[in-house]
Amino acid sequence: MLKFPPLRLTQTVLKGGCAAKVAAKELRSILAQVRFPPNPADVMVDAGSFDDAAIFKINSTTALVQTLDFFTPIVDTPRNFGRIAAANALSDVYAMGGRPVTAMSILAFPLGTIQNSVVVELLQGAVDTVSAAGASLVGGHTIDDDTLKFGLSVTGLVHPEHVWSNANSREGDVLILTKPLGTGALTAALKREEVSEEDIRDGIESMCLLNEIASHLGEREKSGIHAATDVTGFGLAGHALNMARASAQSFHFYSSEIPRFSRAMEFIRRGFLTKAHRTNREYTQGKVSFGFKDPDLEELFFDPQTSGGLLLSVSAEVAETMVGQLISRFPATAVVGKVLKSNAPHSEAGALFFE
Amino acid sequence: MLKFPPLRLTQTVLKGGCAAKVAAKELRSILAQVRFPPNPADVMVDAGSFDDAAIFKINSTTALVQTLDFFTPIVDTPRNFGRIAAANALSDVYAMGGRPVTAMSILAFPLGTIQNSVVVELLQGAVDTVSAAGASLVGGHTIDDDTLKFGLSVTGLVHPEHVWSNANSREGDVLILTKPLGTGALTAALKREEVSEEDIRDGIESMCLLNEIASHLGEREKSGIHAATDVTGFGLAGHALNMARASAQSFHFYSSEIPRFSRAMEFIRRGFLTKAHRTNREYTQGKVSFGFKDPDLEELFFDPQTSGGLLLSVSAEVAETMVGQLISRFPATAVVGKVLKSNAPHSEAGALFFE
Repeated sequence: MLKFPPLRLTQTVLKGGCAAKVAAKELRSILAQVRFPPNPADVMVDAGSFDDAAIFKINSTTALVQTLDFFTPIVDTPRNFGRIAAANALSDVYAMGGRPVTAMSILAFPLGTIQNSVVVELLQGAVDTVSAAGASLVGGHTIDDDTLKFGLSVTGLVHPEHVWSNANSREGDVLILTKPLGTGALTAALKREEVSEEDIRDGIESMCLLNEIASHLGEREKSGIHAATDVTGFGLAGHALNMARASAQSFHFYSSEIPRFSRAMEFIRRGFLTKAHRTNREYTQGKVSFGFKDPDLEELFFDPQTSGGLLLSVSAEVAETMVGQLISRFPATAVVGKVLKSNAPHSEAGALFFE
Repeated sequence: MLKFPPLRLTQTVLKGGCAAKVAAKELRSILAQVRFPPNPADVMVDAGSFDDAAIFKINSTTALVQTLDFFTPIVDTPRNFGRIAAANALSDVYAMGGRPVTAMSILAFPLGTIQNSVVVELLQGAVDTVSAAGASLVGGHTIDDDTLKFGLSVTGLVHPEHVWSNANSREGDVLILTKPLGTGALTAALKREEVSEEDIRDGIESMCLLNEIASHLGEREKSGIHAATDVTGFGLAGHALNMARASAQSFHFYSSEIPRFSRAMEFIRRGFLTKAHRTNREYTQGKVSFGFKDPDLEELFFDPQTSGGLLLSVSAEVAETMVGQLISRFPATAVVGKVLKSNAPHSEAGALFFE
């Protein structure tokens, strides 16, 4: 039987992982030119940015959560790529307070150059992660294409009155983050062949971890969540800014408390950055300020996350017990900031400060 | 202002449209190696072939219909490509008896070589078609990629007791087809630059047409539908065979009654075929027989359709009135065959005969 050399998936990609994502600015300029009809009343949340989950109300007790994401390999092992892509896609359902029920795969792979066994492993990783989430992979579409890409379309269910919006962050709230930052720098180091997957195991395990927090929380803590979002491609700063703007609040972060993977700062200092580090900085331009002088630490807050943690804006009364309930499953969970009243209450835009 | 030469979308694609789809045989061999957990009871229909719509039961009156499809351009005009991709993806929901409620876009395009205005037109076509279906485009994901690809993930609703399965075709049923065949040969001619989009306008209009038949039918006709499927990439023979097998019946087609686009046979005779013509023939090998000697006509029944019509297996009592109700919206609608009892009642496989 022929022996093939081990295939490193990241080396099959020309455009790198999340870097192949179209920048938010460009996408917005395209979407601004498309005429959308007014949303019917049952569309509770649409995705103007084409990036977040949407909510469709079926009746007074049931709404659908809809989300879709796919990308090129950011890790080398097919099974891990499948697990991460699934956890990443499922995350948006959790970030809205929903539970995923079905998923469909989006798969593009080069029939001629990638063996079927790679695809089997990739799908197995996705099936296992979707099953662990209590959902079912019920279908999908597969094409022959030049570059491997994989992701999921996910449908979840949520009670329409219990949707975790990103627009209800309140003055005095405490900000909690459930996973470390740095997957962008870690996977950039992997792609440059500076490290192996084993060297960044903390990052891989974190990306595979489902953002299912509800089952770990008491009722009091759950009802103390005012706003939630998952931290993904736009980095902590980008997603926090979206939440601060939507809530018309200012967020104050305690930079030293923000969790990061063990080698994230080392890789940033060595310059293992992506295009998204720059576009995420541009995206938040003029709205983010820093109380320290350390450009490398700034990069951490712009670092694009794949399957990043949840950023929660919670009532101060429940913050401590919530961290206690989450920490066994999400060991990096930490209080990372607080919510101030927006300095410009008549402006729709919020602002961020990292002390 | 700079003037760009008109861009013909089909000329931007290396692998052709539906030809980029992975053949059913290859896909099945991959999926057979993935370990899927048993479906929970609420998954009423999964998609073992990764190609059809799945059904997830929410409660006794509501189930979700889930489907996903995307492909490279098969026509030149961006607006038409968006309309066709949307009608094609929505079709699977109609084929299950459902009504679509939300859609999300799957978009990959070369930022460097395709102007944003092309993407705006494409999305506008999709938004218009999704809106015409009474559904909302609520999000999606966009990446920078070498070859333009577009499609939708669609969620619909259906009453769990009124799902149009493809497994309930009954002896004595009449087979009705609602659109002509030949989109594979038409778009192959377009890709070879043998014709313009204007020359195949009947095919373009048909592919843009939503397969929404329920609102045109009386209650008696609706309840006379025993089985339904939409005719897409596997051609009439492939999809009919799936239905015949699932129903353990034999289908007898009246070849001369099967509708076709005006120039479909001309293009087939001139050899404008795709890889799918061959793989569709292989897929049905040994299960399809012909009562005539005309290899070109055989190719028509293997011709891969994009946004093809519905194949309905209906009670003989309602067939005539059903055709009458559909013909104003779907002018090619015709009785194309009948259902016989399977010759091999103990075999799971059905068979097709084209007289």
